[in-house]
Amino acid sequence: MLQGLSLLGPVLGDPGDHAFQALNPATGEALRPVFHSATDAEVDRAVALAREAASALEALGGPGRAELLREIAKGLEGAADELVLRVMAETALPEARVRGELGRTCFQLRLFADVAQEGSWVEARLDAGDPARTPLPKPELRSMLHALGPVAVFGASNFPLAFGALGGDTASALAAGCPVVAKAHPLNPGTSELVARVVQGALARRDLPFGCFSLLFDAGHAVARRLVQHGDIRAVGFTGSFQGGKALLELVAARPEPIPVYAEMGSVNPVVVLPCALAARGEALGRTLAASVLNGGGQFCTCPGLIVAVKGEGFNAFRTGLLQALQAGTPAPMLGEGLAQAYRAGLAHHMGLGAVGALPAVEAAPGCGVPHLLEVSGAGFLAQPALGEEVFGPTTMLVACESEAERSAVLAALPGQLTATLWMEPADEALAATLLPRLRRLAGRVLFNGVPTGVEVGYAMVHGGPWPATSAPGTTSVGAAAIARWARPVCYQDAPESLLPRELRADNSLQLGRMRDGRWGRH
Amino acid sequence: MLQGLSLLGPVLGDPGDHAFQALNPATGEALRPVFHSATDAEVDRAVALAREAASALEALGGPGRAELLREIAKGLEGAADELVLRVMAETALPEARVRGELGRTCFQLRLFADVAQEGSWVEARLDAGDPARTPLPKPELRSMLHALGPVAVFGASNFPLAFGALGGDTASALAAGCPVVAKAHPLNPGTSELVARVVQGALARRDLPFGCFSLLFDAGHAVARRLVQHGDIRAVGFTGSFQGGKALLELVAARPEPIPVYAEMGSVNPVVVLPCALAARGEALGRTLAASVLNGGGQFCTCPGLIVAVKGEGFNAFRTGLLQALQAGTPAPMLGEGLAQAYRAGLAHHMGLGAVGALPAVEAAPGCGVPHLLEVSGAGFLAQPALGEEVFGPTTMLVACESEAERSAVLAALPGQLTATLWMEPADEALAATLLPRLRRLAGRVLFNGVPTGVEVGYAMVHGGPWPATSAPGTTSVGAAAIARWARPVCYQDAPESLLPRELRADNSLQLGRMRDGRWGRH
Repeated sequence: MLQGLSLLGPVLGDPGDHAFQALNPATGEALRPVFHSATDAEVDRAVALAREAASALEALGGPGRAELLREIAKGLEGAADELVLRVMAETALPEARVRGELGRTCFQLRLFADVAQEGSWVEARLDAGDPARTPLPKPELRSMLHALGPVAVFGASNFPLAFGALGGDTASALAAGCPVVAKAHPLNPGTSELVARVVQGALARRDLPFGCFSLLFDAGHAVARRLVQHGDIRAVGFTGSFQGGKALLELVAARPEPIPVYAEMGSVNPVVVLPCALAARGEALGRTLAASVLNGGGQFCTCPGLIVAVKGEGFNAFRTGLLQALQAGTPAPMLGEGLAQAYRAGLAHHMGLGAVGALPAVEAAPGCGVPHLLEVSGAGFLAQPALGEEVFGPTTMLVACESEAERSAVLAALPGQLTATLWMEPADEALAATLLPRLRRLAGRVLFNGVPTGVEVGYAMVHGGPWPATSAPGTTSVGAAAIARWARPVCYQDAPESLLPRELRADNSLQLGRMRDGRWGRH
Repeated sequence: MLQGLSLLGPVLGDPGDHAFQALNPATGEALRPVFHSATDAEVDRAVALAREAASALEALGGPGRAELLREIAKGLEGAADELVLRVMAETALPEARVRGELGRTCFQLRLFADVAQEGSWVEARLDAGDPARTPLPKPELRSMLHALGPVAVFGASNFPLAFGALGGDTASALAAGCPVVAKAHPLNPGTSELVARVVQGALARRDLPFGCFSLLFDAGHAVARRLVQHGDIRAVGFTGSFQGGKALLELVAARPEPIPVYAEMGSVNPVVVLPCALAARGEALGRTLAASVLNGGGQFCTCPGLIVAVKGEGFNAFRTGLLQALQAGTPAPMLGEGLAQAYRAGLAHHMGLGAVGALPAVEAAPGCGVPHLLEVSGAGFLAQPALGEEVFGPTTMLVACESEAERSAVLAALPGQLTATLWMEPADEALAATLLPRLRRLAGRVLFNGVPTGVEVGYAMVHGGPWPATSAPGTTSVGAAAIARWARPVCYQDAPESLLPRELRADNSLQLGRMRDGRWGRH
């Protein structure tokens, strides 16, 4: 069934010189078929198709694009069984988790369908003119967001559906009216091919240009380079590691013309446990956080990788709960052998910098991530700020501070984060209020008495944050607001009504929320 | 009265090793006083003050910042006479133009005051939680835009008030809650010092931290480098030349941590004259466009520097009207000798690439920009795409095309623009409709039957556009939407009501327009 060839629209690429296979992380088995890297000409062809499709996709309007997204979601559900099996084979993730992720992916497609259909995301603004104004007449201005054009999407391997080739980046880009050229993650090429076929099926049923979505395979970096440096690519979405994001940013920086790169690169997601919370529920809280660390084998970009507590009542119970729950965690196969090696190397790196822990015995579980607690004093952490770097896998570092002042210094030493979490009791509120401004400046999302794993898809979500968590702190890659990343404002001055987009016409036939003369309303 | 020293808050910098003076462009006279470049320590001090002031400025809230901006506007009006004289001395611009620009600057401050006070610009979003949801409870999410922190602003010399140290970038950044460290343009240091004193006066009267605004002098690039590479600077605003913007982007790229740069770098602002408009009002239209070219001695980033017409009825009359009106234009002193030299060099460059014209005699008007028409065929333009580069000054290039196909090719060869203008009659509408998608993709603002000079300050304005017109095509540097450049979204998950910012509390006591569960409303 799977062909192993890039999909330029629905047209198959040629088998090229470079081939690779996915491996089952649990068994090490090479999964069929062999996949073939796209050639330069195929990259160019995919972008050319996307460029040709751009006008039609935009002209379709929000309601038309909503139908496409819903058709895709339906297609995913129709392909669920085949898809789930392939995801499980490529990731070794349990079925319930994969089915949950599939549901989330469909929900996400339908959320962006709703956003596109409702239409107010284009931020239509109308300023009346005044021909009688002196000394100069006031022009009439109307502005709205327009799609950027073809975009490139690089999915992540840890959520091959929700953040993969047909994840949030692709869903939001299509919703905005941007054709997508997706690069399949080399760890899940089969999953990527299956979702690409679903998209192509939906495009065919809706009689839309196939160029709205193409999928390129490559186990190396040649396709990524050619794709993001192509003159017709207008923006890039990426989810993955800091190293991967940084490499992509460097490729884009070599373009003559810069384009936005929305790279979500993960972080350590500090958890700050305040004294009364520590005293009130130390051990239980330790277990709760351990469960979050173990979620998906620790392979979440929101994995709580750093816990900052001040020694005091409940600290030992907390530490015990955390340690025991981590030690009781079953080593799970990591998504790829490279990730398993990087996990061990990351643990060793941090131990070399003074974090206390013992490197897990590799023989116990080859290719698996063995859950592990690292520990360091506040002073030890402050002496080695590189301890704040993410170790991707089922581990967290407990930073034991001697005082609130030391804790503040630890938090001040952290770089930008996707999330920051406060555990508190009502009696901690005064302290929480003093820490909050720092946490807000640190992260894209601040949680209270919860775990950062689990990124709710909704209207108010921010999955983003300051560098190095992302390359675009002003944006989110999850939730309704993600659509605006793929558009830019255009203003029409004194345009004839008949030449204006429907979104900007006086009659507001789409019933959008719009800003007229500075006031928002459905007018 | 003027001191010639950087203002670190209200504290004067030291006279350093590097000194410079402004020149009166009309007389060549060196204007007193001598200005002294800021030292590295002074740059650091200004940023430290800004960092210290950030919390207070944000805590002030929108209404408080609105009062500050209005106080500043009042202060500018109070200093009008002194200010206008100094601007005239530093720019040789006529008094009416300077007074007009002062009025625009005050209007702009008050617009951002209104935006800050009304408050809905923070895009508050509230998603209700659902503790009963299965398999996982749905968290409650609330998000809004928060100020980035200290920002650096680099003003332009052609509008020393409206786009200067206290121009739109500074006004919008203060409105958003970001302290500003402004670098004075070396052509108008006196103007910059006067407006900085106005801001300091307003801060003092409002009892706000002086660090909300500092001003740094420098005739070279050392201050710019140190300022934009400072770890506590969170974003940069710039208005000026492509060369200047590019240099600044390279300085920022050398930071370990990237930050957004909002650089508005000008463009040639193509004007597309359609056949019926050419036939109906050829000569008058030529004169209208010439007046726009001559506006401010051609030193507008929206100067119509490229006119694309297809030869046909009315073309000769149009060309005659344009040429005669340009020839009748009085050579005006350019803002600086460097600009006058660059203007002549730009004309010579374009003539070297085949544009027809004669280099104006420099003896006629030293330091002045002599209005000038360049002409080239469509084929000639297509053979030399560098003819699409901006020549800053009172000139425009008439591209005479043989056919609509050739015109389309010319438009397709242009890089990103701030504006694109269509002149049309109703009978041109079908043609206009086919050209419009291209113009919209090309520019941030598309005008109909108007001139691009004159950038209305309002809610719907977009003064922006694709690279190389700007470095941030998703934004505008003029108009209400400019405020969002200085903020990023933060999401609060399951936060105690008492710890939330007022903008996100359930009672909506600020009566903001907010999105609740996906629906905008004042709720």
